[in-house]
Amino acid sequence: MKARITVTLKNGVLDPQGKAIEGALKSFGIDGVGSVRQGKVFDIELGDLGQTQADDVLKQACEKLLANTVVENYHVETTA
Amino acid sequence: MKARITVTLKNGVLDPQGKAIEGALKSFGIDGVGSVRQGKVFDIELGDLGQTQADDVLKQACEKLLANTVVENYHVETTA
Repeated sequence: MKARITVTLKNGVLDPQGKAIEGALKSFGIDGVGSVRQGKVFDIELGDLGQTQADDVLKQACEKLLANTVVENYHVETTA
Repeated sequence: MKARITVTLKNGVLDPQGKAIEGALKSFGIDGVGSVRQGKVFDIELGDLGQTQADDVLKQACEKLLANTVVENYHVETTA
């Protein structure tokens, strides 16, 4: 089983890296881009786990390590 | 129009950050995780562009700034 976890900043949390990218795009002459926000993605291969067990492992991984739930949201997608 | 760009390392490219996460998960007692690979995600708001124009802007942004196409793949998704 595989999973993709996407961690993004919550709305309202400042994203200086995103702002820097906006500026860089403009300075490269790439117009038409409004705002940019950067996040992280984790592609995880899971061993031989059932769906419930996998969901549990992934939730623990997010809450304990991958996401700072004070300022970040996470989204988990699993595929067989 | 909104877009999400996902940048991931190509297969075969070493990912020390992913390896560190694997180690950290094990040390937290979270078992069942095989391999981890980390990537980046960019949520972009585009101005009033048509689909073709938006695709073009996003491709330029990826090739020139967001992805290092020597070692990274990128994937673009747009939503209205």
